[in-house]
Amino acid sequence: MKGFVDLNSDLGESFGAYTIGLDSEVLKYVTSANVACGWHAGDPLIMDKTVKLAVENGVAVGAHPGYPDLMAFGRRNMDITPNEAKNYMLYQLGALSAFAKFHGTKIQHMKLHGAFYNTACVKKELADAIVEAMLEVDKDIIIMALSGSCLLQIAEERGLKVAHEVFADRAYNADGTLVNRRLPGAMIHDKNLAIQRIKRMVLEGKVTAIDGTDIDIKADSICVHGDNPEAVSFVKLIRESLEAEGIEVKNIGSFIKRGN
Amino acid sequence: MKGFVDLNSDLGESFGAYTIGLDSEVLKYVTSANVACGWHAGDPLIMDKTVKLAVENGVAVGAHPGYPDLMAFGRRNMDITPNEAKNYMLYQLGALSAFAKFHGTKIQHMKLHGAFYNTACVKKELADAIVEAMLEVDKDIIIMALSGSCLLQIAEERGLKVAHEVFADRAYNADGTLVNRRLPGAMIHDKNLAIQRIKRMVLEGKVTAIDGTDIDIKADSICVHGDNPEAVSFVKLIRESLEAEGIEVKNIGSFIKRGN
Amino acid sequence: MKGFVDLNSDLGESFGAYTIGLDSEVLKYVTSANVACGWHAGDPLIMDKTVKLAVENGVAVGAHPGYPDLMAFGRRNMDITPNEAKNYMLYQLGALSAFAKFHGTKIQHMKLHGAFYNTACVKKELADAIVEAMLEVDKDIIIMALSGSCLLQIAEERGLKVAHEVFADRAYNADGTLVNRRLPGAMIHDKNLAIQRIKRMVLEGKVTAIDGTDIDIKADSICVHGDNPEAVSFVKLIRESLEAEGIEVKNIGSFIKRGN
Amino acid sequence: MKGFVDLNSDLGESFGAYTIGLDSEVLKYVTSANVACGWHAGDPLIMDKTVKLAVENGVAVGAHPGYPDLMAFGRRNMDITPNEAKNYMLYQLGALSAFAKFHGTKIQHMKLHGAFYNTACVKKELADAIVEAMLEVDKDIIIMALSGSCLLQIAEERGLKVAHEVFADRAYNADGTLVNRRLPGAMIHDKNLAIQRIKRMVLEGKVTAIDGTDIDIKADSICVHGDNPEAVSFVKLIRESLEAEGIEVKNIGSFIKRGN
Repeated sequence: MKGFVDLNSDLGESFGAYTIGLDSEVLKYVTSANVACGWHAGDPLIMDKTVKLAVENGVAVGAHPGYPDLMAFGRRNMDITPNEAKNYMLYQLGALSAFAKFHGTKIQHMKLHGAFYNTACVKKELADAIVEAMLEVDKDIIIMALSGSCLLQIAEERGLKVAHEVFADRAYNADGTLVNRRLPGAMIHDKNLAIQRIKRMVLEGKVTAIDGTDIDIKADSICVHGDNPEAVSFVKLIRESLEAEGIEVKNIGSFIKRGN
Repeated sequence: MKGFVDLNSDLGESFGAYTIGLDSEVLKYVTSANVACGWHAGDPLIMDKTVKLAVENGVAVGAHPGYPDLMAFGRRNMDITPNEAKNYMLYQLGALSAFAKFHGTKIQHMKLHGAFYNTACVKKELADAIVEAMLEVDKDIIIMALSGSCLLQIAEERGLKVAHEVFADRAYNADGTLVNRRLPGAMIHDKNLAIQRIKRMVLEGKVTAIDGTDIDIKADSICVHGDNPEAVSFVKLIRESLEAEGIEVKNIGSFIKRGN
Repeated sequence: MKGFVDLNSDLGESFGAYTIGLDSEVLKYVTSANVACGWHAGDPLIMDKTVKLAVENGVAVGAHPGYPDLMAFGRRNMDITPNEAKNYMLYQLGALSAFAKFHGTKIQHMKLHGAFYNTACVKKELADAIVEAMLEVDKDIIIMALSGSCLLQIAEERGLKVAHEVFADRAYNADGTLVNRRLPGAMIHDKNLAIQRIKRMVLEGKVTAIDGTDIDIKADSICVHGDNPEAVSFVKLIRESLEAEGIEVKNIGSFIKRGN
Repeated sequence: MKGFVDLNSDLGESFGAYTIGLDSEVLKYVTSANVACGWHAGDPLIMDKTVKLAVENGVAVGAHPGYPDLMAFGRRNMDITPNEAKNYMLYQLGALSAFAKFHGTKIQHMKLHGAFYNTACVKKELADAIVEAMLEVDKDIIIMALSGSCLLQIAEERGLKVAHEVFADRAYNADGTLVNRRLPGAMIHDKNLAIQRIKRMVLEGKVTAIDGTDIDIKADSICVHGDNPEAVSFVKLIRESLEAEGIEVKNIGSFIKRGN
């Protein structure tokens, strides 16, 4: 039994005059912030402000690189090469690192965004390129990705620290992948059920897949959202429910070890 | 008498399918590379390639941040605030740092580009913001700017390492500023004269201003260009002429000290 | 005495996943929509949606070109040349024209955005270039700009149709220019006073400047905002107050003639 | 037997300080210019210059819309929706139309660029959206695409004028599609053979596929390139060879009729 877990959220996704996300609210409850790096969202002023806020709230800072596609918020796939994947990730990771240093902290983790995340989790040659780059640049940065994904397998085999991410509001297939959002039952709308599921993932390492079978799942971090007041309330509820169960909520940097 | 000087050039200014600059040629002769960081020019693939090439040629790597204005190559002024200046510089510096790490090196210096360079050299509040940020992020990165500029004064007073840059092909006003390009006599077209001038700047710390008076000038680094074959030949000639005079050409990292 | 006026508002300023402005609300009260063209704000999907909504509400469509500076919403000045001004305006005007055609309408007017507006209103060489381009492309598109500005003078002399724009919430200097926002008294916060002022501008062609003198002012169109629910209520109040006074609120296309 | 054909080339693909293509050279030989619209390449200044040059050379102007991906020159696929395809095409078509009007001409045709071209030629829902939009905006603009493609079939059925494009330097599969560039034999390097093939396409409507079979092919326009001096020489040779055979080289606007 594992008595702790991380809560992560995508933050700093505003841009210029545009605001998305109740960052200062959600930062009260999460332990790891995935900070947008100016490609799918975010800009240097937003990055500066977000890292500052995270540090003030004792939340660990992570890079959240996305596709160069602000127009679609990095959500649609682009047919990028492994070399592009490597360099796009490096560029954004590096950019964020300056803000981390400026605010007296370090980058704890790297989690890809949107379509970049989805593609890198399943496409071996992109995964290889990303892992390769992280090994060269900083072996201590934890890579966070879909629990059980090919990307994490490769990362772990090659010596990176890995964090398995699970979703409170998503159904799983029997093979551990997420049920496509367009299919019925893909989203878990019942908050109590969602909370029961994540508790079980953390405590037992199990989740019930959409076909009714029980599957193994690693839950180092739970992805939560702060887009609107209701979402923030749910994050608060998740945190309180976990703690009420005796599960400590703390950032992945405090418990993920190499080869864990 | 000073027996050494640095040669710097703006490199990595290609973008996607577009090529500018004979980088692999000019890297044979310069000692410091100002690498574009993806805003006024450059992209992650170009940055990766340029840093790799610089390292292979034993050339020190510097960041060359510009305005967010690829459409005009960062050459026209934008009315940015000190906070924007600070964060734009940090973002690009950070981005490049990942490529430096990936290729086993560190960022030696930071030199602003185009209109960003010109404005920060004279506008005290931008200069302050940039110096402040560099002090927080990495005190060891040398700031390179127009010899004698307000930016360097502020930087030096506050404890950054500074490198005074001079131009082989530009005329100077009696106050040490560059003669505006639109004025007659602004450009030194005679190569021999240009070489005589830079030798004197290095050896005597003097240059003849456009009004005929002799002025003091510090010459830590000479800016050279590699846009076309003729420009590259001139770089080669500059290097050979300096060395023939017994002036050692070496990067600023090897001789600039804090408070120099 | 003039018994009619236009109400215009900047619309379609959302971008991708980002929303700004209560467009569907404000379209109930205004008569001319300044539609962002994808540079300082807006994207093709937003333009499509906004033009459709405007047409459905019987609101005339205008182009609202801005600087290529999404990161600062086109609000900071860029040192562009007359040739750039001309071509940036043409590009955006043309882009919007396709959406106007698609939805069965035509572009009624062109109003520049933010820093582009401010600069073109006072810088003769930019004004000339913009007017020149509009004359070549479509003499029937009305140019809307700051009442009494140099841009409108040039436009009128050269044969364009012009619309003089006034502001309900801004103080005027004695020379008819707007009081700089940073100065005390620049904004008119008292809604009743604001409404009294615009009524007088429309009916008498007069406004009290910040120094207490009465000045002449042409008021073809009043600029209103729809950023938040309170702003929309004020637009509604303005419209109702004007109509209660017997002032007809109708679009500039219905009353502006060449050489008016 | 058909005694005429159009020669088209992608032009105006420079951007800001970056130059690609010997536009002024290639414009001496082609009859239709596909002008980049500022997304995958081109900017308003380049569009202005390119349309002006085309008009001066008597070359018909067409829009050449691409993906919003300057960083990869519009060459990699993006997973865009039909609604995005429609609006991206409209935006760029509209933008170019302003430059056409400014220079006293009209848009003759629309040809998609790179990955947008490839995808729209085979993906029915994108093709539908694009055709729908063109019908609403201007039924007289000819749509040019891969000879025999699904896009052209749909366009023709729905009443657009269509131009079938063939390639001098590419091998064809037996089903009329292009052989993938990565496969052996995909490119025709022998210039004489290339010229023999296009003559036969024009005169007989036949081409030998890579498997040796003869297939039917419509050749309204031949795509040629002007990237370098050798490419331009080949364009000149193509034109001279066609004319020597008695084939008139003229733009598609002069011979394509609705339902042809």
